[in-house]
Amino acid sequence: MITNTAVSPTTHSVNSHANSLLSAVCQWQQALGKRAVAADITTLERYARTTLPASSMPGAVLYPLNATQVQTIVKIAGLHGVSLHPISRGRNYGYGNACPATDGQVIIDLQRMNRIVSVDDELAYTVIEPGVTQGQLFEYLQGYHPDLWMDATGAGLEASIVGNALDRGFGHTPCGDHFRATCGLQLVLADGNMLETGFGHYAAHAAHCYPYGVGPVLDGLFSQSNLGIVTRAGIWLNRRPQAFEAFFVKAKSAQALAGLTDRLRELRLSGLVTSAVHIANDLRVMSSRISHPMASDERGQMLDSETRRQLVRKLGIGHWNVSGAIYGSHITMGAMRKAIRRTLRPFHVVFLSDRKLALAKRATRLLRTIDPVRRLSKTLQVIEPVYQLLKGQPTDAFLPSIAWHMPQLGAMGTTDPLDRSVGLIWVSPVAPAQGQHGDTLVHLMEPIFNKHGFDMPVTMTLVTDRALCVVSNISFDRQNPSQVERAQHCHDELMQTLLSSGYPPYRTGPGGFEKLRANDSSFWSTCRRIKQSLDPDAIISPGRYVA
Amino acid sequence: MITNTAVSPTTHSVNSHANSLLSAVCQWQQALGKRAVAADITTLERYARTTLPASSMPGAVLYPLNATQVQTIVKIAGLHGVSLHPISRGRNYGYGNACPATDGQVIIDLQRMNRIVSVDDELAYTVIEPGVTQGQLFEYLQGYHPDLWMDATGAGLEASIVGNALDRGFGHTPCGDHFRATCGLQLVLADGNMLETGFGHYAAHAAHCYPYGVGPVLDGLFSQSNLGIVTRAGIWLNRRPQAFEAFFVKAKSAQALAGLTDRLRELRLSGLVTSAVHIANDLRVMSSRISHPMASDERGQMLDSETRRQLVRKLGIGHWNVSGAIYGSHITMGAMRKAIRRTLRPFHVVFLSDRKLALAKRATRLLRTIDPVRRLSKTLQVIEPVYQLLKGQPTDAFLPSIAWHMPQLGAMGTTDPLDRSVGLIWVSPVAPAQGQHGDTLVHLMEPIFNKHGFDMPVTMTLVTDRALCVVSNISFDRQNPSQVERAQHCHDELMQTLLSSGYPPYRTGPGGFEKLRANDSSFWSTCRRIKQSLDPDAIISPGRYVA
Repeated sequence: MITNTAVSPTTHSVNSHANSLLSAVCQWQQALGKRAVAADITTLERYARTTLPASSMPGAVLYPLNATQVQTIVKIAGLHGVSLHPISRGRNYGYGNACPATDGQVIIDLQRMNRIVSVDDELAYTVIEPGVTQGQLFEYLQGYHPDLWMDATGAGLEASIVGNALDRGFGHTPCGDHFRATCGLQLVLADGNMLETGFGHYAAHAAHCYPYGVGPVLDGLFSQSNLGIVTRAGIWLNRRPQAFEAFFVKAKSAQALAGLTDRLRELRLSGLVTSAVHIANDLRVMSSRISHPMASDERGQMLDSETRRQLVRKLGIGHWNVSGAIYGSHITMGAMRKAIRRTLRPFHVVFLSDRKLALAKRATRLLRTIDPVRRLSKTLQVIEPVYQLLKGQPTDAFLPSIAWHMPQLGAMGTTDPLDRSVGLIWVSPVAPAQGQHGDTLVHLMEPIFNKHGFDMPVTMTLVTDRALCVVSNISFDRQNPSQVERAQHCHDELMQTLLSSGYPPYRTGPGGFEKLRANDSSFWSTCRRIKQSLDPDAIISPGRYVA
Repeated sequence: MITNTAVSPTTHSVNSHANSLLSAVCQWQQALGKRAVAADITTLERYARTTLPASSMPGAVLYPLNATQVQTIVKIAGLHGVSLHPISRGRNYGYGNACPATDGQVIIDLQRMNRIVSVDDELAYTVIEPGVTQGQLFEYLQGYHPDLWMDATGAGLEASIVGNALDRGFGHTPCGDHFRATCGLQLVLADGNMLETGFGHYAAHAAHCYPYGVGPVLDGLFSQSNLGIVTRAGIWLNRRPQAFEAFFVKAKSAQALAGLTDRLRELRLSGLVTSAVHIANDLRVMSSRISHPMASDERGQMLDSETRRQLVRKLGIGHWNVSGAIYGSHITMGAMRKAIRRTLRPFHVVFLSDRKLALAKRATRLLRTIDPVRRLSKTLQVIEPVYQLLKGQPTDAFLPSIAWHMPQLGAMGTTDPLDRSVGLIWVSPVAPAQGQHGDTLVHLMEPIFNKHGFDMPVTMTLVTDRALCVVSNISFDRQNPSQVERAQHCHDELMQTLLSSGYPPYRTGPGGFEKLRANDSSFWSTCRRIKQSLDPDAIISPGRYVA
């Protein structure tokens, strides 16, 4: 509703904003060189791409080389009142990719800050910049520090490690809780000052060994927020174990979830299993093995229950599929396997080691004409990437799975869902690691997915000993307006239902920030007060989690 | 230097402060009842007692019953501009006990808020108020939740669990990092508003299972600080293991520290050992077994090296003494023992289980007249409390040890060091868990202790896989002015040397806060800005860590 009186100030404000931006861009160009500043429409549109229903358009994109340049950028932004949205690699699929919470923010793309600053072999940590990717660190460690294993998510080789940790993503190994694996952040505040958390500001030897420092622990402020721009982080790595085995459980019955969850929680609480443990439903596993049978159907139809059952049988998967791993010595592996088998009884546990995997692969090469072996070969194609993730090896193998309803992705020679207008929203509530809560969530969520015409692939992960992060996704075709609309409604209904049922999400995207704050708690007003004290002019990512 | 012009405003300001305090006390009495407010000199002097060289005198002491009363207290304090210093049980020995950073603050003693709000058997956590003591929770779990083990520090039965966790104390079991074992805080802010961290403000089922919630993680702000008054906390507990064994290593040579440290770090990094691992020097162990041979010497003389060597031999202890534990199942214990023995080679590892301990105790009872058995009996007296701590059982057995230079403590029928004017300052730098750093710290610290005439009992603890918390103590007689002065100088020189050498402490007391802030880093200025935004009138514990 635009009234006469309203038009003029709005226009004025838009122009004034455009002028500020223009002045800032000029000054950034002078300070950083023209190569470090992009404001052409092609670039802006590329950064506006997202898998979410709604996108936002950045005002410009900046490419600093180091923390000093980030300080310069922030100071210039402050002079002109322009907002900045830092991204590491912009691969935040399903949570907004590179998009800021509102239009017009200037993206700081930290991809050129991709130095692996140091690796400590004895203490098993690395210090890296936000531009360092999973693939890059993995190769580096393989080459120069073979006794260290990183942790990786399924987000692919190009995803940022620091970015994922700050968004509290998780992986598979004992360092799978990525935020917990950070130790010692260096960051730039909204006033351009540099801050080091923990013991960093004392130049302490233990800056990346002991996370808390002395005095208040500030690290948490810079996770899922907009209070600073992290330019460097200590990341804990795993000591390569003497012996490694992955384990897998398939449960045929949908009712098995509760029993599995309770047993797996006890395995974690006993300290026997220190990896993250993932429980994936049939649809999650299918999506990484085949294209959605209705993928060519423009209406984006769901899998009917008969087809679903047939596929489960054909692919030899369970309704629930568990993966985890044990890390030990040659001395302990046998006893650990036995103890795990006993705790998980009556479920059947399959262990897989490097030796077994090599053997199976050799067998399938030699005997590929025999039918059951062909099936084994297919199973291996799926299991091997999971197996490697449990050893901290990143892979692009799971990227097509989030687009299984759009099978052309792989065929197009790209693994980037953004190249194919893939629609994806993660919905990821957290529950206590108890069977009853797993069941409740399935019964709460699946009908909402189905009501809006979507299948519900879901993975329940024990990220801590006591909690399940329940990661489901709404997959749709972003070029199909009716699907986009349905996806948006489905997301909104899920968020509302989950929040009001006591299952808030561990993470969300631009479409969820306001919904989270709707409870209007003193938690959020405290965040706002801290925001106002550290960033009174809302320079950094306004609206991102904190208003 | 008092000038005429200065006297008048100072007097005025003192009077005005006294008037504000008086008004506030009246209002607190009206609101909470007279029983909940104390301002008599006997009480104030009791709360001013500390083991540190310098004390501070509170303005009054308040005893709220619940969080609502804490809110009331804070609001009244705000009206009158009176500062409040919350304590849980005031047992913060060696770091200031109940004393605020400056005179005149009003103590909120939370001891009456001692409810065990809930215990979750399946998820292994409890929700407790700050007044809950180690002894209280232990008894409660023993009685009603025998499948749960808490973690305990050596600070005794009367020490607060929440207070210790917020000060980032540590214990012995897999939940030994106490701050990390908190999950979900409820607290009162300086404006009287209630805040719940993590998922608590959503009334989420996982509020005490998943520590981060969604959005920024605020918990760290309320640890080692003055930004809120915690009124309730979720605390993770250990699942009682099917099998438990403690392990001990004695190393005769002072040079053994480096090799031990490196091997123990690898045990932690491998995931085999999940307990905290303590490496205590000879003096630390002695102090819990005997009185200091010079204890009757008023000058507080040090142990000469010959006597020290003789005692080490006589008591059958090592120069370095390791304790740790494994928690597993009957199936895994044998393999775990073997793997630990192998990793620690050439050091000899002794394992102790309930069965062995019972056997040894029976033997010593039956054969107590035989000399070597008498020695075993003495060893058991020391080992048993350590053994029980590794099972999370709190004990008062270690309280006399911090006063071993003042042997009358036990004889007086009190275990509270405050009843005997025991002087104690903890000095606790943090280093990477590497042998070289352990050595460096000993060579850096011990000469300073000795120069000022003090022995250096020290324990190096792997609280995380990668860091040593090196806890040493200056023990002195608080009634001896020359000892007090030497202790103060020794502390100051240690702090300065450790800070400038890159080994800041993990924790300190009122005598250390300003020294920590002397680096004037943006870390501390950021803390100050947050303090100003949440507590502009400096109501809560001014000067405590944050200025």
